[in-house]
Amino acid sequence: MLQSSLLSAGRLPMDFNELRKDYLLDRWVVIATKRARRPTDFAVKEKKQQAKTSACPMCPGNEHMTPPAVLLYLKKGRALKKAKDRNGIRSKDWLIRVIPNLYPAFTPPSSKTETRRIGRSEGLANAVGHHEVIVESPCHDEHPADAGSQQLLHVVNAYLDRLRALSRKPYIKYVSIFRNYGLDAGASLSHAHSQVIATPFIPKTVEEEMKASKKHFKKKGRCIFCEILAKESKSPRFITQNFSFVAFAPYASVNPMEFWIVPKKHQVTPLEMSPAEVKAFTVMLKECLAGLKELVNDPPYNYGFHLALDRKARKHYHWHLEVYPKLATWAGFEKSTGVYINTVTPETAAETLRARLKNPPKS
Amino acid sequence: MLQSSLLSAGRLPMDFNELRKDYLLDRWVVIATKRARRPTDFAVKEKKQQAKTSACPMCPGNEHMTPPAVLLYLKKGRALKKAKDRNGIRSKDWLIRVIPNLYPAFTPPSSKTETRRIGRSEGLANAVGHHEVIVESPCHDEHPADAGSQQLLHVVNAYLDRLRALSRKPYIKYVSIFRNYGLDAGASLSHAHSQVIATPFIPKTVEEEMKASKKHFKKKGRCIFCEILAKESKSPRFITQNFSFVAFAPYASVNPMEFWIVPKKHQVTPLEMSPAEVKAFTVMLKECLAGLKELVNDPPYNYGFHLALDRKARKHYHWHLEVYPKLATWAGFEKSTGVYINTVTPETAAETLRARLKNPPKS
Repeated sequence: MLQSSLLSAGRLPMDFNELRKDYLLDRWVVIATKRARRPTDFAVKEKKQQAKTSACPMCPGNEHMTPPAVLLYLKKGRALKKAKDRNGIRSKDWLIRVIPNLYPAFTPPSSKTETRRIGRSEGLANAVGHHEVIVESPCHDEHPADAGSQQLLHVVNAYLDRLRALSRKPYIKYVSIFRNYGLDAGASLSHAHSQVIATPFIPKTVEEEMKASKKHFKKKGRCIFCEILAKESKSPRFITQNFSFVAFAPYASVNPMEFWIVPKKHQVTPLEMSPAEVKAFTVMLKECLAGLKELVNDPPYNYGFHLALDRKARKHYHWHLEVYPKLATWAGFEKSTGVYINTVTPETAAETLRARLKNPPKS
Repeated sequence: MLQSSLLSAGRLPMDFNELRKDYLLDRWVVIATKRARRPTDFAVKEKKQQAKTSACPMCPGNEHMTPPAVLLYLKKGRALKKAKDRNGIRSKDWLIRVIPNLYPAFTPPSSKTETRRIGRSEGLANAVGHHEVIVESPCHDEHPADAGSQQLLHVVNAYLDRLRALSRKPYIKYVSIFRNYGLDAGASLSHAHSQVIATPFIPKTVEEEMKASKKHFKKKGRCIFCEILAKESKSPRFITQNFSFVAFAPYASVNPMEFWIVPKKHQVTPLEMSPAEVKAFTVMLKECLAGLKELVNDPPYNYGFHLALDRKARKHYHWHLEVYPKLATWAGFEKSTGVYINTVTPETAAETLRARLKNPPKS
C-alpha cells in the first residue's frame, strides 16, 4: 500500500511489532513495519484523475450554482473586504467564499421551537447544526502546499471567522473544521475547499480527549498537551518548529505519516491566536503539507482541528491540528475492534518528512 | 459514492437528517440521505481488476510459498480429516488451509519469559499474539455468496477450530475473526480468505460493548442483545431469519447497507453453537452476502465477529457478526470526531436487501 519512497529509504529500523497507546484516548495501535512489505496481487490503481469532469460549482462564474455565501473575502484594491451575498445576488471577484453545504449532514433549526427541542433522548435527536464549505481559492486546484502565503492566510482567517460566528449560536456545542483532499480521502469535489460542521454536542473523540486531559490536570496540575509538546520537541518524532508552533509525528499515530501541529502557548481554541501566531501557523501548515506532497507523491489526506469551546476546559485542553495522510485502508480488524495497525513508525515518518522540508529545523 | 441501484429504487423516504445513537456504544451517526446525491467531479473509478497479477501464495501448488499450515481440512474420500503440515512438508489436496500470516500484526511470544512480561505499562507493550490466514477454498476467487454450502460450512468450522485453540492460550484475551473482501476494503490478496488475530487484551470496541451490556444487565436483569433482537425482528430494519438466527440492519448503522447476524439463543461465543446452528448460520451468511453482492454490484466489504471469551460476560454479552459493506469513505469529520455520517437509512438498507434474497422471509 505504501509508497516506495518510504520503503526504499533504507533507513527503516529493524522490523518490529509494538503496541502503543494514544496520549489521551484508550486507543491502541500496533506499529507493524514488516506488514508494509506484504505483497498484493491486485492490479495497481492508477493515479486518480483529478481533472474536472463537469462544471465546478465552486469555480468563479458558477456562483449561481450554490446557495448565497455566508462569508466572502472580496478584493478591494489592495485591501480586503468581508461581506455576504445579499438579495439573492452572488458577488464576484472573491478570494474566499464560504457557502452552506448543499448536501448538509447537519441543518440549522427551522424555528425557535426546534431550537428548544434539541436534546438527546432514547438515542434519537435532530441533526441540528451547520455544515458549510470554505472555498479556499478562485483557482480550482490550489493545493495549500502551492498556494500563496497570503491566500493561505485568508483560508485560516476564514476558519477563525466561521469558528467565531458559529460557536456563538446557543444550540452549538462544537465546531469541527476539516479538510478532505482527494477522492480516496472522501472529497467529492476536487476544487480546493475545507468544511465546517457545527454540532449540538461535543463529538465522541473530542469528549474523550477532554475527559482524559481533565483527569491529567487534576492529578498533575499541568496540561498534558504542554507536557507532550515538551517531550516530542526533543524526541525522534519531532519534525519542525517555529516561534509559535511545533510539528511532530504522534507517538501512537494510527495513520502512516500522520503529524500534528500544536501551539507552544497553552491555548484552548485557535481563536486565541494573535495575528502573528496565525501567520506562523499558516507557514508551518504550508511547509509540512508541501513536504508530505513531495515525499509521498501528492497523497490524499484529511486534516481536522481539535479544540474546546467550553471555558471550563481552559486549563486542561490545548487546541491542535491533526493531519492524516490516507495511505492505508482500515479493514475488518480496525472496524470491529477499534485497534489500529500502522505499518510506518512515527519515528520514520518524522525522519523522512523532516528531510523534505524546505526550511529544515536547525539541529 | 453510492450505487445507483439504491438511489433509483424510488423507495427512499423523504430526505432527512437524523442523529442516532448506537445500541451500546457512545457513538452517534447522522443519517443524511440527501448527501447520497451530492455530485462528484472526480472521474468515475473503474471497477478494480480482481484478476491475479502474480502467482498466488494461497493457490494449490504454491503451498511452499507460505509457512506450514497450523490447521488443514483434508479430503479423505467422503470424509474430512483435520491435520497440520509436519516436518516442513506442505500437504496438498486440502479444502481449508490455516497458515500463520507472513506479515503479522501480532506475533507469538518467543520465550516463556516474554509470555510472562506481557502487560501494559506507560503506553507500550509487546504486540504478542497470533495472526493467521484462513484460506477458504482451493478456488482462487470463491466468494462466499457462490461457494458450495459444504465448503462454507468448512470455513465456519475452521473459524471455530481456531477460536477454540487460540482462546486456550494463557496470554490471549480476545480472538478477532474477520474477512476483508476487495482492495478498497483493505484486502491485499484476492484469494478467498479470512483472518484471525488473537490479542493479549480485549479490544476497545468490544470492551465498550461489554461494559455497556453489563451495565444494562445490572439495571434491567436482561441481555440487551436479546432485547434488540426482539425489537428489530419486528422493525422495518428486519432482513431475514431462520430457526436459529436473525439478520437486520442496525438502528444506528455507521456503514451504508450494514447488517448484523445474531443468534436467537443467548450465546456468548460462537463456540456454543450446535452443529445444526453452525449450519443455520452458514446458510444465512451465504444468503445475505449473495443478496448484497447482487444488489450493489459485488461491493468490497468487511465482516467481523464480536464475542466474549470471559466467562463472567456469559449473562450479559451475546455474540454476533457485523458486516460492513465498503460503499463510503470516512473522511476528516469522522476521523477527527468519532461521529459518522451514513447516507443510506438502515430501513432502506433492509428493504432493498430483503428484496434481493433468494428465500425472502414470509411476512
